[in-house]
Amino acid sequence: MTPADLSARIRNKALLDRIVSADEAAALIKDGMVVGMSGFTKAGDAKAVPVAMAERAKADPFKITLITGASLGHDIDRMLTEAKVLARRMPFQADPTLRKAINRGEVMFIDQHLSETVEHLRSNQLGPIDYAIVEAAAINEDGGLVPTTSIGNSASFAILAKKVIVEINLSQPMGLDGLHDIYIPSKRPTRAPIPLMACDSRVGTPYVPIPPEKIAAIVITNETDSASSVLPSDAETSAIARHLIAFFEREVASGRLDLTLQPLQAGIGSIANSVLQGLADGPFHHLRLYSEVLQDSTFDLFDAGKLSFASASSITLSAPYAERVFGSFEAYKDKLILRPQEISNHPEIIRRLGIIGINTALEFDIYGNVNSTHVDGTMMMNGIGGSGDFARNAYLSIFVTKSLAKNGAISSVVPMVSHVDHTEHDVDILVTECGLADLRELAPRERAALIIENCAHPDYRPQLRDYFERAVARGGHTPHLIEEAFAWHVRRQKTGSMRES
Amino acid sequence: MTPADLSARIRNKALLDRIVSADEAAALIKDGMVVGMSGFTKAGDAKAVPVAMAERAKADPFKITLITGASLGHDIDRMLTEAKVLARRMPFQADPTLRKAINRGEVMFIDQHLSETVEHLRSNQLGPIDYAIVEAAAINEDGGLVPTTSIGNSASFAILAKKVIVEINLSQPMGLDGLHDIYIPSKRPTRAPIPLMACDSRVGTPYVPIPPEKIAAIVITNETDSASSVLPSDAETSAIARHLIAFFEREVASGRLDLTLQPLQAGIGSIANSVLQGLADGPFHHLRLYSEVLQDSTFDLFDAGKLSFASASSITLSAPYAERVFGSFEAYKDKLILRPQEISNHPEIIRRLGIIGINTALEFDIYGNVNSTHVDGTMMMNGIGGSGDFARNAYLSIFVTKSLAKNGAISSVVPMVSHVDHTEHDVDILVTECGLADLRELAPRERAALIIENCAHPDYRPQLRDYFERAVARGGHTPHLIEEAFAWHVRRQKTGSMRES
Repeated sequence: MTPADLSARIRNKALLDRIVSADEAAALIKDGMVVGMSGFTKAGDAKAVPVAMAERAKADPFKITLITGASLGHDIDRMLTEAKVLARRMPFQADPTLRKAINRGEVMFIDQHLSETVEHLRSNQLGPIDYAIVEAAAINEDGGLVPTTSIGNSASFAILAKKVIVEINLSQPMGLDGLHDIYIPSKRPTRAPIPLMACDSRVGTPYVPIPPEKIAAIVITNETDSASSVLPSDAETSAIARHLIAFFEREVASGRLDLTLQPLQAGIGSIANSVLQGLADGPFHHLRLYSEVLQDSTFDLFDAGKLSFASASSITLSAPYAERVFGSFEAYKDKLILRPQEISNHPEIIRRLGIIGINTALEFDIYGNVNSTHVDGTMMMNGIGGSGDFARNAYLSIFVTKSLAKNGAISSVVPMVSHVDHTEHDVDILVTECGLADLRELAPRERAALIIENCAHPDYRPQLRDYFERAVARGGHTPHLIEEAFAWHVRRQKTGSMRES
Repeated sequence: MTPADLSARIRNKALLDRIVSADEAAALIKDGMVVGMSGFTKAGDAKAVPVAMAERAKADPFKITLITGASLGHDIDRMLTEAKVLARRMPFQADPTLRKAINRGEVMFIDQHLSETVEHLRSNQLGPIDYAIVEAAAINEDGGLVPTTSIGNSASFAILAKKVIVEINLSQPMGLDGLHDIYIPSKRPTRAPIPLMACDSRVGTPYVPIPPEKIAAIVITNETDSASSVLPSDAETSAIARHLIAFFEREVASGRLDLTLQPLQAGIGSIANSVLQGLADGPFHHLRLYSEVLQDSTFDLFDAGKLSFASASSITLSAPYAERVFGSFEAYKDKLILRPQEISNHPEIIRRLGIIGINTALEFDIYGNVNSTHVDGTMMMNGIGGSGDFARNAYLSIFVTKSLAKNGAISSVVPMVSHVDHTEHDVDILVTECGLADLRELAPRERAALIIENCAHPDYRPQLRDYFERAVARGGHTPHLIEEAFAWHVRRQKTGSMRES
C-alpha cells in the first residue's frame, strides 16, 4: 500500500504510529478478558487479529469471553474454538465446530435476543469490555470509526470498551463512508424516544464516535468478507414464496394492506431470500426493508424497481452479488442505511413501524409455537438471533419452513415443539410448501385444525389428526397428551424417523 | 338521584334523553356482534348491561365475541358463560366458570399480550367492534368520557366502535376526573414516538375523546367495584420478598442500581403484593411504579413515604383499602396516573424506562423457562396477561412462585415446563421462598445448577439433580432427556404427586 492509501483511511496522522502487526495486537488480549468483536452474519468481521489470537493460544493458552454482533465469517469461530480460546460466547453463532463445543458443554454459550446484548453491557450486567476489536473502512481525524459492511454491536463495543483495536480493511470500498447511521440510546431511566420514524430516517452520526486516545492498535488488512452461502430457490422455497405472496395479495384485497405492504424484515437463509425474490415478480411496489441483514435478494428487488429503501445492520452477499453491488455501490448507496443491531432490531422501532417479519422455524407445533434453535429440545443449532425481536413486535409475524426434513424422516409440524423460542402469541402466519395458516385471532383448537390441514405434509396429517383428536377428547384450552407430546421426537431418536410404522 | 347529580355527571344536556334501562341497552346487542367492554382486574367494569345481557339470553339466546381489558368483577364472566353468550373471549379472564368452559372447548379463548389487543383492532385484524360498553364517571359536554378505576382497552373500544353504551356509575367518585391520561398511538407506518419519558409524564387527554353522536345509550348504575381478593402475606411470600429485597440491596452495593431502583411493575396477586409491602421496610426511597394494576400495597408504600409516583391501568383494592383510598383520594391523586393498557404495557415504554418487572410463575424449569398459564400444558388458568409485555422488555425480569404447591405434591421447579409463556431469554431472576437465582449472562447448564440449588424445594432437589446429571451425560446446550422431560407431570396425573416413590 502507498502512504496515500493509508492517509485516506487513517485521517488522524498521530494514529499512524499505532499500526502494528496482527500478532502484536493479539498479544494485548489476556486470559480472562471480555472482548467485543465486530461481525454480523459474516459481514464486517475482524479478520486478522482473531486469527492471530487463535495462533498465539497454541503456544500460550488463554481464554476469553467473546461477544460479537452475530455470526462471523472466515472460520474465525472454528479457529478460536479449536484453539480453546472461547470460555464464553454470546449472543449468536453459526459455526459447526463451535456448535459442537457448545453442545459438549465446553463453551458456555449465552443465546440472546440480538437487540438486548448492548443493553446488558450498558447497564453493567456483564463485566466491562476490555478490548473491542472492530473492522473499519477508515478512522476520522477525531478518532471516529467508519464501519464497513456491518455494524452489529461494534459501535457500542468501541464506545464501552476500555481500549479499541481497529482493523483497517483496504479491501472494503471507501464508498461505505456515509452509509452508516450510528444512534446510541441514552442510559435509562432518563432515555428519550428513539427519533427514528421511517426506514430512511437518519438520526445519528455516520461514524462511531470514540476519542483517538482509546485506539490501542491499528492492524491493516486486505481481505474481503466471506461470501454468503445462501442456497438457490428450489420447488419448496418457491412454493412457500407463492403462498406468502398470495396471502399478501388477499390482505391488499381486504384493505388491510396496500401494495407497498409494510416495512419487511426477512431472516437470513434460503427461504427468506426466496420469498423476497418472489416479491420482485408480484404486483407490489415501493417496498421497504427494515431488517437485520441485506442478502442478494435485496439487490434483485432494487434492480427490479420494486424496492424504495433498505435499512439493516449488515450486507451479506454471495461472491457474484458482492462484485456487482460493491462494483457499482453509488447506484445503491442513497437507498441504504446500516444501523447498530440494537436499532435495526429495537422493539420500539419494530412496533412503531409495523414490520412484517419473516423468519425461519426449525419446527412448529399444532398450536403455533415455534422452535428456531434446538434439535430435540437439547442440541443448539445457531441461536435465536433477532427472530424474537421481530416476531414479538411485528405487525405480522410470519414463520416459514419446509414441511419435511431428512428426506421425510422428520416432520417440521409436530404435536409439541421440543423447545419454544416463539410462543403462539408471537406467531401470526405459518407457511410451508404445502400451504399457509393464518392464525390471527384464533384459539388454540382452531389453530391446530388449520396448521394440520394447511401446513403439515400430507404423509404426517393422519398422525397429527390422531394426536389432536385424542387430546381434544381429554379436554383443555391447548389439548395435549402430556405423556406422548414428544413421542415423535423419541421415535426418531430410536428408529430414525418420526413416522409411525 | 337528583337532577343536579346527573348534570354533574352528564355534562352535555342533549345526552340526557339517551338514558335507558340496562335491559333496553342490552337489547341493542345482537347475535354475532363484537363487543368491547371496560374492566381491568375487576376495576371499572360495566356492571349493569352485561348482567342484563345474560338475563336476556335465557329467553333470547345470542352469542358474541367479547373483548375486555382484562378480568372482570361481579361474576360477569360467570353469568355470561352460564347464559352461553360467549362464543369468543379475549384477551384475559380469571373466572372459574369461564375457565372450565374454555377448557371444555365451549368458549374460544384468545389469550393475548395485553398491550397488543388494540393494535390488532386498529389494523382490522379482527372485525369491527359493534358496541363498546364502558363505565364512566362522567360524560363531558363534547362527549368525552371520564373513565373510572380502570382504563384497560376502553378508550380504544369507544374510539373504534360503531356505537357506545355508557354506564355512568354514581358510586365512582367524581374525584377520578383528571386522574387519567389517554394517549392513542397513531396508525402505522406513520406513527410518531410515544412521548412518555417518565412514570409521571402526561401526554394525552384526561378523557376519552368521542363525539356525543356515537353514544347510543346511557345506563345509570350505583355499585362499587368488586373487592380484590388478595391473600395476606404468609411465611413463604415474606421469604420471597426478603430474598428479593436482599438482591436489590446487592445491586445497589454493586453500583448497578441506586436506592430509588428503577420503575417497578408488579403483577397482580399475593406474592407481588407481599414483595411491594416488603419494600416499605427497606432502605429504598423515591420509588416509582409503572405497572398494570395498583393493589393495596401501592398505598402502603405511599403512606410509608417510600413511593413518589404510580402509573398503571387500574386500581384494584380490597374493601377496607378502597374505603380508605377513595375516602381521601385528593391526598393521592397528584401522585397517580391511569393509562390505557396499551401504554401501561407498551414495549416501547417498558424498554425506555427500564422497568423492573415482578411476575408470578405457575412453574419454571431448570433452564429458566416459565409457564404462567397452563396446568400440564393443557388446562388454561387465566391467561398470559401483561407478563410478556413486561418480561420481554424489562431492565430486570423477575419471576416469583412458591417452590411447592398442593401440599408438596407439586414442585414448581420441574425438568421442563409443560407450557412456555416466557423463554429463558426473558427471565433474569427466579425467586422462591427457598432462595433466588440470578440467571443473567449465564448459559443453560449454569442456570440449571443455580435454579436447582437456590430455588427448588430441598425435597425435590435430589430428583432434579438426578435428571440434570443424566441429561448432561448425554450432552447438549440445554441438556434434556426428551423421553422423560414430562415424567413428573405424568406421575402426578397418575399418582397424585410428582415425588418419586
